[in-house]
Amino acid sequence: MDIEKVNSMDFGEFVDVFGNVIERCPLIAAAVWSQRPFSDLEDLKKHFFAFIDALPQSGQEGILRCHPDLAGSEVRRGTLTAESQREQSGAGLTTLGADERLRLAELNAQYRARFGFPFVLAARFSDRAAVSRELARRLLCPSSQELRTALGEVKKIGSLRLADLLRADPAKL
Amino acid sequence: MDIEKVNSMDFGEFVDVFGNVIERCPLIAAAVWSQRPFSDLEDLKKHFFAFIDALPQSGQEGILRCHPDLAGSEVRRGTLTAESQREQSGAGLTTLGADERLRLAELNAQYRARFGFPFVLAARFSDRAAVSRELARRLLCPSSQELRTALGEVKKIGSLRLADLLRADPAKL
Repeated sequence: MDIEKVNSMDFGEFVDVFGNVIERCPLIAAAVWSQRPFSDLEDLKKHFFAFIDALPQSGQEGILRCHPDLAGSEVRRGTLTAESQREQSGAGLTTLGADERLRLAELNAQYRARFGFPFVLAARFSDRAAVSRELARRLLCPSSQELRTALGEVKKIGSLRLADLLRADPAKL
Repeated sequence: MDIEKVNSMDFGEFVDVFGNVIERCPLIAAAVWSQRPFSDLEDLKKHFFAFIDALPQSGQEGILRCHPDLAGSEVRRGTLTAESQREQSGAGLTTLGADERLRLAELNAQYRARFGFPFVLAARFSDRAAVSRELARRLLCPSSQELRTALGEVKKIGSLRLADLLRADPAKL
């Protein structure tokens, strides 16, 4: 899909295509449509990220709270979004043994209780061993730093999803 | 459900229950959770509305763009949210004859083209004749006024949904 195609979309088409660039936040794609026309993938990305950065802290935390746990109950219930399913599956998180799953569930619960949002990580840059290690490490970070780190992961995930949709080369992101 | 029950919810439960108070914008419920504890229904409502009011115009338009057309294609496709299905059905909008449906589809399309968001109306305060009349009337309003009117309807819808969830008396809203 080229940028002219993107710029020709009405808001219904745009939200259908880009509504999950930020996990379960179609509101953000729906807001970004107001900024068209876009010059290229970078420009489109810039508007998604600017919207996130301009939200009050409660809104930024809200974005994180719309994300599923990695290797969490939604994997077993089959209620992940298609994008999250692909990303978690690619990192080996949908086929963990019972022990690993329990260990991650425990760390996820500790993380949620500590920060008030779930642990978010761009799974496509990771694998099952790294996820567990990174979760244990971030659990010890100060709250304000962790919010910034987690939003950085949301942006990495969004970048990759946008690149997929525009079939750009992910190496250039 | 009383307010103590609401205040005891973790963010996962809260988003499950209140995620569609603002149609297809779970991000807003997820953000409002940051403001707990809530003193009562009014206080909860206040936080939902304050979040909407604090958004930039693109975000407010984004909220509107997450709403389905009244008596639109989602009725036939069966993809409405449970809340919207109940509200549109109560106003007789899911059982229109072909002529009425076509007339509304035309007006909806004109409205979307003019304002860049769909026509939003609290259907529970309306019926099929009033919807069509109100749509024709609002089609002629100035853009800035229409954004305010439409957000007012989003808040009426949200008030009713919150009252349902807390089983309050809608007459008191």
